[in-house]
Amino acid sequence: MQLLKEKIINEGIALSEEVLKVDSFLNHQIDPVLMAEMGKEFARYFNNKGKKITRVLTIESSGIAIGLTTALELGVPLVFARKKKSLTMSNDIFVAKVYSFTKQESNDITVSKRFLSSDDHVLVIDDFLAHGEAALGLASVVEQSGASVAGIGIVIEKSFQAGAEKLKEAGYDVHSLARIKGMQKGKVEFMEEELVK
Amino acid sequence: MQLLKEKIINEGIALSEEVLKVDSFLNHQIDPVLMAEMGKEFARYFNNKGKKITRVLTIESSGIAIGLTTALELGVPLVFARKKKSLTMSNDIFVAKVYSFTKQESNDITVSKRFLSSDDHVLVIDDFLAHGEAALGLASVVEQSGASVAGIGIVIEKSFQAGAEKLKEAGYDVHSLARIKGMQKGKVEFMEEELVK
Repeated sequence: MQLLKEKIINEGIALSEEVLKVDSFLNHQIDPVLMAEMGKEFARYFNNKGKKITRVLTIESSGIAIGLTTALELGVPLVFARKKKSLTMSNDIFVAKVYSFTKQESNDITVSKRFLSSDDHVLVIDDFLAHGEAALGLASVVEQSGASVAGIGIVIEKSFQAGAEKLKEAGYDVHSLARIKGMQKGKVEFMEEELVK
Repeated sequence: MQLLKEKIINEGIALSEEVLKVDSFLNHQIDPVLMAEMGKEFARYFNNKGKKITRVLTIESSGIAIGLTTALELGVPLVFARKKKSLTMSNDIFVAKVYSFTKQESNDITVSKRFLSSDDHVLVIDDFLAHGEAALGLASVVEQSGASVAGIGIVIEKSFQAGAEKLKEAGYDVHSLARIKGMQKGKVEFMEEELVK
């Protein structure tokens, strides 16, 4: 998505070969117009694929804004999973363990059983895809409920890390709005664009 | 706001005299259409007051959705403050201490100095107003930057707790979309509506 790539080039800061800082428009300060446009793009892509999405699922905090604009465009509710340090044992929630490579710790993500049912077709949305842990955790929550994963929408995919490949191998339809081939301090290189179907 | 009150009556669950559960549309599952309408109402109210808002400030996680629709309607960036358990000493951030009566602990909220400047007129947005701690913390962050607080927009005000009074005494223009006079288990009573200017 051209608008997003331009934002990354103009405002993103590659701090190292692995860390891209985008806090001026994505995960601390938020550009609402960009969010709305990205929500439209996710809706367009998955509608074109004939997916009958009934809910959008994301994870707090950075997924909420892009989840919301996508849900608004699709006309369905948004659910955001909560992160907890320790396991809350409860019969009322779905739980998945998510390992953070950045923080080197596991967190549980939880969703109330009231907000996912076996009839649902769920679009999973997240801001970043690196090792795929968060997206796989969200997909696991969906599958625990008996619902189906209609697809996975990602704002920024770090294509040089393992997540995208893992998700595709697991059979998910992944749509990433910007795909980064590699980074060096101060420099971001994007994957060549395939024609989007 | 009638739409919100109906949601609270139909889907909100008063668990006690103090706790109102609204996780089916506000802070776990989110109703995007309601969020969009509430964002329009905040923009309408504060535009009518002649406030030239340049930024919206809220707090993760539950403030992000309503902050985003408000910022989208006003055509300005959204900034969300982060919650931290312990103080991150840094010259790059504004910090305020926020006491949670529910959790009986203090957290720091932080905002990068890059995203607030002395020229800004900032609309503070939050989902709940009870004792006023979060809103006062956000206002403190705004004032540390030299910016002005253009107003405070609240989705649900528990008018029987001290927060609303505290904010008004401090001179802030507070606009709450639903004002709850009192609760009993299973029952919510709203304040009588003044005519909104």
